[in-house]
Amino acid sequence: MMAHTLQLTAEGRLRHFLTIEELNREILLEILETAESFLSMSLHQVQKVPILRGKTIVNLFFENSTRTRTTFELAAKRLSADVLNINIATSATSKGESLLDTIRNLEAMHIDMFVVRHALSGAAHFIAQHVSSHISVINAGDGQHAHPTQAMLDMFTIRQYKKTFADLKVAIVGDILHSRVARSQIQALNILGVNEVRVIAPKTLLPVEVEQLGVTPYHDMVTGLEDIDVIIMLRLQKERMNSALLPSESEYFKCFGLTEKKLKLAKPDVIVMHPGPINRGVEIESSVADGKHSVILQQVSNGIAVRMAIISLAMQIQPFGA
Amino acid sequence: MMAHTLQLTAEGRLRHFLTIEELNREILLEILETAESFLSMSLHQVQKVPILRGKTIVNLFFENSTRTRTTFELAAKRLSADVLNINIATSATSKGESLLDTIRNLEAMHIDMFVVRHALSGAAHFIAQHVSSHISVINAGDGQHAHPTQAMLDMFTIRQYKKTFADLKVAIVGDILHSRVARSQIQALNILGVNEVRVIAPKTLLPVEVEQLGVTPYHDMVTGLEDIDVIIMLRLQKERMNSALLPSESEYFKCFGLTEKKLKLAKPDVIVMHPGPINRGVEIESSVADGKHSVILQQVSNGIAVRMAIISLAMQIQPFGA
Amino acid sequence: MMAHTLQLTAEGRLRHFLTIEELNREILLEILETAESFLSMSLHQVQKVPILRGKTIVNLFFENSTRTRTTFELAAKRLSADVLNINIATSATSKGESLLDTIRNLEAMHIDMFVVRHALSGAAHFIAQHVSSHISVINAGDGQHAHPTQAMLDMFTIRQYKKTFADLKVAIVGDILHSRVARSQIQALNILGVNEVRVIAPKTLLPVEVEQLGVTPYHDMVTGLEDIDVIIMLRLQKERMNSALLPSESEYFKCFGLTEKKLKLAKPDVIVMHPGPINRGVEIESSVADGKHSVILQQVSNGIAVRMAIISLAMQIQPFGA
Repeated sequence: MMAHTLQLTAEGRLRHFLTIEELNREILLEILETAESFLSMSLHQVQKVPILRGKTIVNLFFENSTRTRTTFELAAKRLSADVLNINIATSATSKGESLLDTIRNLEAMHIDMFVVRHALSGAAHFIAQHVSSHISVINAGDGQHAHPTQAMLDMFTIRQYKKTFADLKVAIVGDILHSRVARSQIQALNILGVNEVRVIAPKTLLPVEVEQLGVTPYHDMVTGLEDIDVIIMLRLQKERMNSALLPSESEYFKCFGLTEKKLKLAKPDVIVMHPGPINRGVEIESSVADGKHSVILQQVSNGIAVRMAIISLAMQIQPFGA
Repeated sequence: MMAHTLQLTAEGRLRHFLTIEELNREILLEILETAESFLSMSLHQVQKVPILRGKTIVNLFFENSTRTRTTFELAAKRLSADVLNINIATSATSKGESLLDTIRNLEAMHIDMFVVRHALSGAAHFIAQHVSSHISVINAGDGQHAHPTQAMLDMFTIRQYKKTFADLKVAIVGDILHSRVARSQIQALNILGVNEVRVIAPKTLLPVEVEQLGVTPYHDMVTGLEDIDVIIMLRLQKERMNSALLPSESEYFKCFGLTEKKLKLAKPDVIVMHPGPINRGVEIESSVADGKHSVILQQVSNGIAVRMAIISLAMQIQPFGA
Repeated sequence: MMAHTLQLTAEGRLRHFLTIEELNREILLEILETAESFLSMSLHQVQKVPILRGKTIVNLFFENSTRTRTTFELAAKRLSADVLNINIATSATSKGESLLDTIRNLEAMHIDMFVVRHALSGAAHFIAQHVSSHISVINAGDGQHAHPTQAMLDMFTIRQYKKTFADLKVAIVGDILHSRVARSQIQALNILGVNEVRVIAPKTLLPVEVEQLGVTPYHDMVTGLEDIDVIIMLRLQKERMNSALLPSESEYFKCFGLTEKKLKLAKPDVIVMHPGPINRGVEIESSVADGKHSVILQQVSNGIAVRMAIISLAMQIQPFGA
C-alpha cells in the first residue's frame, strides 16, 4: 500500500519504480507500449534521442552488477542523460557517512534520478521515501524483495512473442524462495492477467503458503511443464549450492534443469526465458539455452528499451505523447 | 609568490587554480559572480551549457574521494566537456612510470585540464609547473596544504546568506592544524575582508604562531562563538582520533562539538557550515546539522556552480561576458 | 589467412582490426591518411566530430591498461560515440558466465564495437569470429601476439618525420621474443616497404628463425645501429628481469640501453621511438628519451588520431570521403 502511494503521483502517474506490486494494468501497459516505440526507434541509424539532455542519473550500486549497471547506463545515455556511476562500497560511506547523508549530498548536486541496487530488501524504497519531490528512484534489485525492471522486460518479451497475456500458462522454475526476479514476475503476470502461473521447485526452495502469491506450486517438471506457453528458468545462486537447501549440482540438473527432452512436455511453440547470467548444465542445458525456443538474448535487447521507457516515464516525460 | 605568478596569466587572468593565497579580491569576486550566473541557469529545464564542447578534462585522483570527484565530474559534464577519470593508484605508475611521464603522456593526448587530488602538499603545484601552456590545473585538495575550490564554495555560500563580507565574524572550529580546508578558508575570508576570523580548537590542533595566518585563536566554544555570524565546523579525521593529539570522541564532542545549546552563543541568524562528510555526534550534533541554521547541503549545491565557474575561467572562457 | 578474411569485407574493406599480418599496403595507407585528416582537425577549436553519434563502443579489458584504455576512450568520445568501460575481472565472468555468453549479452544490447585487451593471444580473434555481422572488433593487445593499433601509430609517426618508407632502415631494440608490439611493427614495416628492418637483442630475447619474419638480427648496438633512420626501443618487462633470460638491469642497460653515445652511431637525423611507459635508465637514457631525436610523446598524440581512423574505418565510415 505504501509502495503504491509512494510510486505514483496524485494523478496516478509513475514517479518511482520500486515494485510491481499494486501497480495497475494501465501503467504496466503504458511501460510496454513506450518501450515498443523505443525499440522500433533503435532500428534507425542513430539510436540516441535528446529527451533527457541536461538530466543527471546516478547509478547507486551498493552491490556489484556489471550487467544490470551496463543496461541502465546504456538506457540513460541513449536518452542523452548524463550518467554517474557510484560504487558505494568505495565511497564516503567508508568514511562513516550514513546512507541518508550520502543521498542528501547527491541530491544537493541537482541530480534527477537514482537507480539503486542493494543487497538489503527495501533499500530503494527507503531512499524513495527520503528524496526531494523532483527526484525519481528506480529499484535495480533489492535483496530478495523485487527486481521490477527485470520483470517488465520479461513481460515485454512475452508479449513480443505471444501478443496477448490472457490465455497464457507460464511456469517459473527454480529457486523461487530467494528470487527477487520471481517475486516481481509473478506480480506482473497476475496484473497482466495470464491464465495461470505455475512455480516449479523443490519444497525447500518455495516460500510457505506460496499459493497466496497467485501461483500453483509443482514439485516436478513432468507435470509442471504440461501445456505451458512460457518457461522462465531462474538462475541458481551457486553460493547456495552447498547449503542444506539443495542437493548436488548434478542432482539439481536432473530434477529441475531444463533439457531438450523436458522441453517437449510444453507446448510446441513454448518460449524459454532466463534472466541471466546462465549456468549452463546447472539450470539449463546448453542446447536449450541456444536453441530455437530460447528468447534469452532477446530479453537482454528488450532490457534497454524497457529501461528507457521506465526512466522516461518516472521522470514524467511521455516521449511519444500521452 | 611563485604560486601567484603560476596561477595567473601576464594579464592577471586565472590560468591555474592551486591556492587562494595571493590571489586578489577581484579574481575571487569574479569567480563568485560567474558561479552566481551558473546557479541561476540551473533553475532552467536544461542544466547543460555547450561552452566546453570538445574540451577534455582529466580527473587525476591519487587519493580516493568519490564526493569531490563527483562534483568535478558533474561540473565538467554540465559544461559539455568530456571527462576522463583516472585513478592513478591503478595506472601506469604501478608499472614504474614517474608522475612526470604520466602527465607528459596525458597532455600529449590533447587534454585541456587536470583536476588533481593528491595526498602530498604541493602536488598540483608541481604538475602546474610542468604542463604545456594551453593546459590548466585545478587543485582538488593536496595534502594538508590547500583545498581552494572548497573554500570558494564556502565563500559563495556565505555571500548567499550574508550578502556582504565586511561586517562578518567567522569562527572555524576543529582540527585547524591538519586541515587544508581551513587553510584555504582563512585566506579567502581575509582577502574578501571579513571583520574577524576566529579559530577554535584545542592547542594540540592549532599550528604554532597561528595568528600569523590572520586569525584569532580560541580554545573554548563559549567565548569563541560569541557574536559570531558564520560557524564553519571542520571534519574530524577519525584516523587521528587514537593519536596523542586528541582525547576520546565523546570528550572531543563535549568540548568542541557544535550542539544546539552552544549554537545559542552565536548571533541569532548565524549560519552553520561543514565541508562534509559529517561525523554526527562527533563534531556536530545531528539536530544542528539538520537544523534551520545549517546550510551544509546548500554548500554542496553551490559546489557544482562554483566549480563550473572556476573550470571555465581557468580555461580563459568568460561564459557570461568579461 | 583466416585473420585476413575475418578482418576484411567481401569488398576488401576493413571490418575488424586484429592483426597487421596479411593486410595490404592500400589499407594501411588508408588508415594513415584518414588519421592525417583527424590530426589536422584537432588543431581547430572543437576537437569533436559527430560521425559516431548514437554508436556504442565497449572497451572490454581483461587486462588492466589505463594508458591504452584512455586513448581508445578519448578517440571514441572525440568521434561522439558513447563509451562503456568494462573491466571483465570484476564482471559477470566472476559469476561463472563464459566469455562467449558475456559477448552475446553485450551484443544483444545493440553495441557497435568491442575494443578488446586480453592476456591471451588470439582473444580478440576469437571474439571477432563469434560476433554478429554488424559488430566490429579492435585488438588492443592480445598476449604476445599483436598490438596492431600501436604499430599503426608508430607507422604514422615514422611517415610524419620521414615522409616515405622506401629508403628507411629501421632498428627495433629489446625483448623481441615476448613483444606483441614488435611483431606488429615488423609486419607493418615490411608491408609498407621499408628498405631494411633490423632487430637488436640478446639471443635469449629473439624468436628462433627470426629472419623468417623479414628482419636481420643483430646482437650488439654498435653494428646494429649503423646507418639507421629510425630506432624503436621496446619496453623491458621488469617481471622478466629476474628470469634466466636476462642479465641484471645495469648489465642490460650497458649492452642494449640507448644512450647518447650509442645514438651517434645512427644517422644524424635518426628518430627515437618507444611505445611507453619508459623505464628510464633501463632501456633508454633519460636524456635520450627527452632529447631532440625523441618522438615518443608525438607517438602518444598520434595515437588518438590513428585510433579515431581505425575505429571509423572498421565501422565502415569513411569520414573524409572514399
